[in-house]
Amino acid sequence: MSSVESLDRDQTQNLRDTMISLGKAARAAMPALANATTEVKNRALLEMAKAVRVQSAAILTANAQDVATAKANNISSAFLDRLILDEARVDAMAAGIEAIAALPDPVGNVMDSWDRPNGLQMSRVRVPLGVIGIIYESRPNVTADAGALCLKAGNAVILRGGSESFESSRAILACLKEGLVAAGLPDTAIQSIPTTDRAAVGILLQDMPEYVDVIVPRGGKSLVERVQNEARVPVLAHLEGLCHTYIDRDAEIEMAKSISVNAKMRRTGICGATETLLIDQAVIQSHLPQIVDALVDKGCEIRGDTQSQKIDSRITPATEDDWFTEYLDSIVSVKIVDGVEGAIDHIAKYGSHHTDSIVTDNIETAERFLSQVDSAIVMHNTSTQFADGGEFGMGAEIGISTGRLHSPGPVGAEQLTTFKYVVRGSGQIRP
Amino acid sequence: MSSVESLDRDQTQNLRDTMISLGKAARAAMPALANATTEVKNRALLEMAKAVRVQSAAILTANAQDVATAKANNISSAFLDRLILDEARVDAMAAGIEAIAALPDPVGNVMDSWDRPNGLQMSRVRVPLGVIGIIYESRPNVTADAGALCLKAGNAVILRGGSESFESSRAILACLKEGLVAAGLPDTAIQSIPTTDRAAVGILLQDMPEYVDVIVPRGGKSLVERVQNEARVPVLAHLEGLCHTYIDRDAEIEMAKSISVNAKMRRTGICGATETLLIDQAVIQSHLPQIVDALVDKGCEIRGDTQSQKIDSRITPATEDDWFTEYLDSIVSVKIVDGVEGAIDHIAKYGSHHTDSIVTDNIETAERFLSQVDSAIVMHNTSTQFADGGEFGMGAEIGISTGRLHSPGPVGAEQLTTFKYVVRGSGQIRP
Repeated sequence: MSSVESLDRDQTQNLRDTMISLGKAARAAMPALANATTEVKNRALLEMAKAVRVQSAAILTANAQDVATAKANNISSAFLDRLILDEARVDAMAAGIEAIAALPDPVGNVMDSWDRPNGLQMSRVRVPLGVIGIIYESRPNVTADAGALCLKAGNAVILRGGSESFESSRAILACLKEGLVAAGLPDTAIQSIPTTDRAAVGILLQDMPEYVDVIVPRGGKSLVERVQNEARVPVLAHLEGLCHTYIDRDAEIEMAKSISVNAKMRRTGICGATETLLIDQAVIQSHLPQIVDALVDKGCEIRGDTQSQKIDSRITPATEDDWFTEYLDSIVSVKIVDGVEGAIDHIAKYGSHHTDSIVTDNIETAERFLSQVDSAIVMHNTSTQFADGGEFGMGAEIGISTGRLHSPGPVGAEQLTTFKYVVRGSGQIRP
Repeated sequence: MSSVESLDRDQTQNLRDTMISLGKAARAAMPALANATTEVKNRALLEMAKAVRVQSAAILTANAQDVATAKANNISSAFLDRLILDEARVDAMAAGIEAIAALPDPVGNVMDSWDRPNGLQMSRVRVPLGVIGIIYESRPNVTADAGALCLKAGNAVILRGGSESFESSRAILACLKEGLVAAGLPDTAIQSIPTTDRAAVGILLQDMPEYVDVIVPRGGKSLVERVQNEARVPVLAHLEGLCHTYIDRDAEIEMAKSISVNAKMRRTGICGATETLLIDQAVIQSHLPQIVDALVDKGCEIRGDTQSQKIDSRITPATEDDWFTEYLDSIVSVKIVDGVEGAIDHIAKYGSHHTDSIVTDNIETAERFLSQVDSAIVMHNTSTQFADGGEFGMGAEIGISTGRLHSPGPVGAEQLTTFKYVVRGSGQIRP
């Protein structure tokens, strides 16, 4: 055996040891977090926000380091935009933590209670999920959002941010830990993986089921797919948002136009942006050109099927791939479908179970769409861009879950909890 | 390449093709199931029950075949007892399906609804989980229970029973399909894997994420662990029940005795049976000997720590392994602990997050136990044997989930659903 091989093995073992100690420390923090009062958790959150404001200069210095490295690596400008912090963004981060402090505490909430004929008093009470592993890409503010939301729900968290934001995240994490300590909570409640080694993610996913209760991947399709394939613990998946807006034969034209434009163009880079417009063939003459006008006006490129191209020459050809594509850009695909059934079939085949909307004045058609489209969020006469925890009234969110188990849709503090049954008796034994 | 290898490869490919067609057929059945009315689903269930009664002779003949094979393989008597059907058991199976028909339909239930300031009307509505794979051991009645519960919740199901009950399950499945067809539902709503080949389970767990939404393993520890390790889709795990009853210093002695005896001895083979008694050291003199008397009277063997052995000579030595053992037999382990904190610590170390109970007249102590013990079901002054969906008022169940996500505790029809958000607007666009 060469000394290099033996060194590699030592390094692997060291990394494994590091990861296991993170896991053990997170587990050890659980009881203190589960039993922390709302007041203590909120005090920690407000101290975190304060520390972020006070340490603003240090965070910006760390961020400048990340940005310099990223530029040296010729990273794209869209990517850079997500990475760069300035005073306003740091301030928004602190305000975000304060908003989480102001949310109701889900832990301890009695979800139901009922009595049994034998006098047993049953209830179902919200409790923290436990230890959450969050894997995300390079937006440094996710470190603050995710850490704060997990704390609010009484969870310990192990964060793994993108390597490009490593220094920024480290500086933000220091502020979060300061807040924890100021409130008398274990600073191991929020930890991050202290290396950019990709092997660490494999260990987190596969070798730590005793220490990690759930993994939340937050990022692009390839990240989420890797996590789903490799994880040996449950995953709260946040897959892409391949959202559809269907314009029915009974859609009012002005509403169809304004919803189409908003759903696609308000912000093109969010997961609730519409990627495909489905148009009922009954209204291609009356509705399609006007919708195309409105979209082209806003600078949107339109790719459509053969039938739509015949109606409007500004539509370029779409390929089969387009129906599967989350553009996250000023591009929309257009498909002509045979009424609501055609729309439902298209979404079943190409959708990502995220958010889909119908525009129609026909209530029966709307209800058919709402009941038959199998997505976390289904909408009638409104914009898919409302797919957002804040817009739902849930406060901050960590993303939109497209998985079926646990909690599809926006994942906020409440969705980061589970429950237990509490049974109170007076000596009952089972006959 | 030898012809044998090439044959093996062909067989593997055939098995894979068989499994994928099961998955495709299950997916194809989903819309009809999701949209089936309560009346249609209940009609199917009642027709299933009728078919089970009418086909009783055929089921018993198939079961006799399984029993003969099992006997030839020298299978244990406990195992045989679970496998053997008689007229009364077949009748109970039919009655079980009828009871599921009588349950409320969870699908379509509006869980919450609220309005947003912009006029959007939000609601959260229960929908089926989708396609469920259920892997279970050799009690043939599980075929009927699991098939009926999944249908009630609008799910398609792929069943994989133990190979020892293969013929019995096949005969029961035929009755279930008869019921589906009589109600006009696709008979692919309930399917079973048509081979006892173990490789089929591997394919179900790993190669069918497009077709299977969740796996429910129901059986012993090794089965559940295999499923958790191999599955690439979410698992609703039903791990063992290593349940504890803690007798606190403030426990009333008569209640402590009757609950201890009931919790351990009412039925020793169920997952809610207590396996370890934790006794507060403050009451070892006053309570322990009387509890031991009562248990010994019922024929229970008692294994204890050194301290307990000093108090009562009928207690034989327990090893470290005993604290981890789900006996499912007339054996209990006894550990002396230092008050409620000692009990909480022991359960945190050795428990299986299933069901744990405290006996005490001190409400403060009880609340501490209820809040700090991290199990799906926590109890005060009652018997762990109440850990059962029927006793909770939920009707039939498929088992007790010990996982944190989705739905810990008894899993009945409601727990086999998920939800979606329905948003109703009048043209709102997001500012």
